[in-house]
Amino acid sequence: MLETNLDDINAEILGNFVERALTAGALDVFHTPIQMKKNRPGVLLTVLCASSDADKFSEMILRETSTFGVRRQLTERRKLRREFTTVKTSFGEVTVKIGKLDGKIVQAAPEFESCRKVADTAKVSLKEVYEAALKAR
Amino acid sequence: MLETNLDDINAEILGNFVERALTAGALDVFHTPIQMKKNRPGVLLTVLCASSDADKFSEMILRETSTFGVRRQLTERRKLRREFTTVKTSFGEVTVKIGKLDGKIVQAAPEFESCRKVADTAKVSLKEVYEAALKAR
Amino acid sequence: MLETNLDDINAEILGNFVERALTAGALDVFHTPIQMKKNRPGVLLTVLCASSDADKFSEMILRETSTFGVRRQLTERRKLRREFTTVKTSFGEVTVKIGKLDGKIVQAAPEFESCRKVADTAKVSLKEVYEAALKAR
Amino acid sequence: MLETNLDDINAEILGNFVERALTAGALDVFHTPIQMKKNRPGVLLTVLCASSDADKFSEMILRETSTFGVRRQLTERRKLRREFTTVKTSFGEVTVKIGKLDGKIVQAAPEFESCRKVADTAKVSLKEVYEAALKAR
Amino acid sequence: MLETNLDDINAEILGNFVERALTAGALDVFHTPIQMKKNRPGVLLTVLCASSDADKFSEMILRETSTFGVRRQLTERRKLRREFTTVKTSFGEVTVKIGKLDGKIVQAAPEFESCRKVADTAKVSLKEVYEAALKAR
Amino acid sequence: MLETNLDDINAEILGNFVERALTAGALDVFHTPIQMKKNRPGVLLTVLCASSDADKFSEMILRETSTFGVRRQLTERRKLRREFTTVKTSFGEVTVKIGKLDGKIVQAAPEFESCRKVADTAKVSLKEVYEAALKAR
Repeated sequence: MLETNLDDINAEILGNFVERALTAGALDVFHTPIQMKKNRPGVLLTVLCASSDADKFSEMILRETSTFGVRRQLTERRKLRREFTTVKTSFGEVTVKIGKLDGKIVQAAPEFESCRKVADTAKVSLKEVYEAALKAR
Repeated sequence: MLETNLDDINAEILGNFVERALTAGALDVFHTPIQMKKNRPGVLLTVLCASSDADKFSEMILRETSTFGVRRQLTERRKLRREFTTVKTSFGEVTVKIGKLDGKIVQAAPEFESCRKVADTAKVSLKEVYEAALKAR
Repeated sequence: MLETNLDDINAEILGNFVERALTAGALDVFHTPIQMKKNRPGVLLTVLCASSDADKFSEMILRETSTFGVRRQLTERRKLRREFTTVKTSFGEVTVKIGKLDGKIVQAAPEFESCRKVADTAKVSLKEVYEAALKAR
Repeated sequence: MLETNLDDINAEILGNFVERALTAGALDVFHTPIQMKKNRPGVLLTVLCASSDADKFSEMILRETSTFGVRRQLTERRKLRREFTTVKTSFGEVTVKIGKLDGKIVQAAPEFESCRKVADTAKVSLKEVYEAALKAR
Repeated sequence: MLETNLDDINAEILGNFVERALTAGALDVFHTPIQMKKNRPGVLLTVLCASSDADKFSEMILRETSTFGVRRQLTERRKLRREFTTVKTSFGEVTVKIGKLDGKIVQAAPEFESCRKVADTAKVSLKEVYEAALKAR
Repeated sequence: MLETNLDDINAEILGNFVERALTAGALDVFHTPIQMKKNRPGVLLTVLCASSDADKFSEMILRETSTFGVRRQLTERRKLRREFTTVKTSFGEVTVKIGKLDGKIVQAAPEFESCRKVADTAKVSLKEVYEAALKAR
């Protein structure tokens, strides 16, 4: 987990950084509004990555955002076993991500891109496809 | 200005709504984290649009998000006169949006898409192009 | 819509106020983190109520929170027509709130209290009941 | 300290989880609004618990929220020595939590439930009881 | 009430603007973290001022922040009658702001600057003075 | 990195604490709005300091805020090499902080205090000086 505080954020550059870091293999990238000294709103930028990638992403943050320093912390991660399945809806087939704990399904989430494609083709809203996929499971 | 509180947000559907509303002609769309009753985190969704479009976007919100109601308020808007200009940087030409008050330039912002194209072509970071455009003005 | 800025929030008193205002007939009560002068985090408290109740809730805010003033704005509200229906799940019957626009169902939300009762009786998680109700619709 | 990012939050389910985790022995549970990729608002859920309980709460998070993974970090904790005392106010007796550092009282906080009971009985606002307890100390 | 969305915030310039607007007579100035399109964190800047000052502060926002437009809304305001009183604490005299509704005191807040001066002179923490002033009332 | 959750924040006392902790040698101090149990808005206060100062700042937090406990975590920090340079603008000379990675300049940020002094003397807005300094580099 890499973290940095930004108090001179050009939001466009930050938005672009999020996309680029994900493309470069970060596990997750998000940011949190924080309040810094002297009435200054800031952003806490967090990049989750494999520990072997920590140097790469530290440098990417230092080069492509406005920060002068990056903090690094080791975190242990526990994950569900993930599988993908397909369900049939009246709008078309949708991919659903399944999460298992001790062999039992505890999560099921329709895949965004799959829902969006089906919604575009069927000319219905994303929400309708998403709900249909949840029901069809 | 249209507003609604969402307490059952599928973030993917909301993210998609933002894009669709902008494509459909909304002046601006943004959301603010709020805290609702019973430990529930929510989102205040705001759509700014011409008053003649208010009905269209009210219905879009009611259909495509998870809300049961939309609030509407009239706001007056004062804007800078906008112009576009082009500046030369060592990476290529960049479009800059100019804002004028009483004939005097008070804002100048390099255009995001223009910077990104130049950054992609020149294989440098968006931040470098952005800063070069600010200097070149 | 009544709004006030609080910079001296005892969170327990505010949490209690939210409950009391809802009990007293407010349509909705929520709060948003804001940043005030001199590094001070604050809270923007919003109470939505019928315009005939505005005086009552203004006084309640002035008496029971730490503010010295309340702002008031008129907002127009457009709502879905609401109905309640019951769906059968393998855990028991659940009430679902239905929202209609021009006679067409555009929202369906399982009722929280109904789901919680069923979850308690069936000794399953709220999430399982909620998802079962969405599917059963 | 357990953390997870939620981008598909049903606020009612999350609000309910907070209560259940506290009942199950978590030291503290809170959440922070974050901003995830593609315009998606999310929530960073944090559960503080004894390290011997980490597995129990990790599984609870995986089962009862919409996440596919949980991060775990060890934190050291330094606490004030806590005592409870009773103070007399004109509305009735109120319990106050005392915090001591090196034998000296540095914190005193009227207990919420105690204040609320007194407020209900005396038919005054929670704020009045709270302030009276602070003065009576 | 003037509002503007900033997506290119230099936090130092914004922090400085807040101070300058207050010095120039704004009733209150605060900002709220918002989430704009394309992963961009933004800030909603709010300036409350007398309606006769609205033009002055609109121009100040347009000149001194990075925005291209300002929204304006009329709000009605209900205030407590304010008085100042002095209380004696063991650290020295502190000014307290009193708020009255229908002749009854409903708010009492020790003045920050007054507490700070007393804390500096008595070499104790601001918190101790503040609590002593609340008790002394 | 020291962290604590505050649910009984007097914003003035917190704002004052931020200044005092920075004066006492903290590397950075910031806070994040969080949502705690029972509708209570809270603040996560973070103090970054050298590990040799952790005890000092833990006690300062326990004494001067309203918390009963402080969490401590070790983080590794990677920093740019910092240098200061001076640039000439039409308003006067401005100090700029330079950040280098492997000998290459990747950051340049005009110093706030330096810009403010120049802006005050030249009677122009902080924003104009800041932009002039970026261009002059």
